[in-house]
Amino acid sequence: MSVVTIERKVLEKNDEIAATNRLLFKERGIYVINIVSSPGSGKTSILECTLERLVGKIRLAVIEGDVQTDLDARRIIRYKVPAVQIVTRGGCHLEANLVRDALAKIDLEGLQFLVIENVGNLVCPANYDLGEDRKVVVVSTTEGDDKPLKYPAMFRNAGILIINKIDLLPYVNCSMARLRENALAVNPGLKIFETSCTTKKGIPEWCDWILSQTPPRD
Amino acid sequence: MSVVTIERKVLEKNDEIAATNRLLFKERGIYVINIVSSPGSGKTSILECTLERLVGKIRLAVIEGDVQTDLDARRIIRYKVPAVQIVTRGGCHLEANLVRDALAKIDLEGLQFLVIENVGNLVCPANYDLGEDRKVVVVSTTEGDDKPLKYPAMFRNAGILIINKIDLLPYVNCSMARLRENALAVNPGLKIFETSCTTKKGIPEWCDWILSQTPPRD
Repeated sequence: MSVVTIERKVLEKNDEIAATNRLLFKERGIYVINIVSSPGSGKTSILECTLERLVGKIRLAVIEGDVQTDLDARRIIRYKVPAVQIVTRGGCHLEANLVRDALAKIDLEGLQFLVIENVGNLVCPANYDLGEDRKVVVVSTTEGDDKPLKYPAMFRNAGILIINKIDLLPYVNCSMARLRENALAVNPGLKIFETSCTTKKGIPEWCDWILSQTPPRD
Repeated sequence: MSVVTIERKVLEKNDEIAATNRLLFKERGIYVINIVSSPGSGKTSILECTLERLVGKIRLAVIEGDVQTDLDARRIIRYKVPAVQIVTRGGCHLEANLVRDALAKIDLEGLQFLVIENVGNLVCPANYDLGEDRKVVVVSTTEGDDKPLKYPAMFRNAGILIINKIDLLPYVNCSMARLRENALAVNPGLKIFETSCTTKKGIPEWCDWILSQTPPRD
């Protein structure tokens, strides 16, 4: 039995569980995003800005994935939002079974929007469906404009791209036009947001889009 | 046969080939570093600054690892240094056999210093020995000061830490003291350099250290 065979079986098993998660989300009317990026691109900061605007408008919950520590979940619970931390202990991505287990710890009643923040890794999480509606890939301007070309799978499998840290553009070697062009060359269907968690630019547009996916309930 | 067993066998096989690589480097007196980081931390930029100072002083070669594209090797050959690009086509880390195969394309005669630039990934390359003398982990100030705690294996297995993009410190939410403290908590033996490829601060100290490991030959 080769490593490739094992890997295919792992992915098949993962896809089955992801399909079950997706069915559960659909039955309950929960819109789910899976946020992926390099370490330090600002996934948790974007999430904090998002919660700041949306808490009280829609019912949200967060699943945090990290290799080690519960630092991110601690940042999230300050917003009075249910948060579950998954610690992979060295694992380089979340898998659908970990999300299924985390769901057991969240009250899904009335929930409208679930954010799954993946492990910081621009390679491995690309291949693992968690049952989400959309993968949202975040890339920060400080990482340069070539990342979509160098890590194409992630940009190909995502529906949304958030270009973060746009406030740092004057200080870094990154062309916004080239970054957009490279991303759209890999995936012409990408919907792109540009944000800064420092100046809050672009955050309202991003939050409005979330609200358009999760109509308020009575 | 479980996935864990397969993984252990892959690692054992890798370690065997890494030991052979290491023996070859030792016999020829080549000092070898394996540079690892998140995507966009500045590995290739640090390498460019390094080549700018060291070409003509010692004999160098570079092995570039990327998921896709030969963009990095193209940046390197402008410095008239032998460079071989490994494209992993989705693979999330370099393995010792890929380095062994790349070595066959480099003239090792008289070589003093070999740089292996790994795939941008702060998780998976931590476990794969390539035969290097030292793993050098790069983290940029824009990634925040919590990364050593969240991705401890990489910082534990590295001998050197380069904190890059220090010119951006005024604009980002990163405490240099906390970053150093977190890194040393994970690995008290880390030797730390602080660099900026924009202002070139810290680059001379880093290059002097390389020269101290690779004494000029007659």
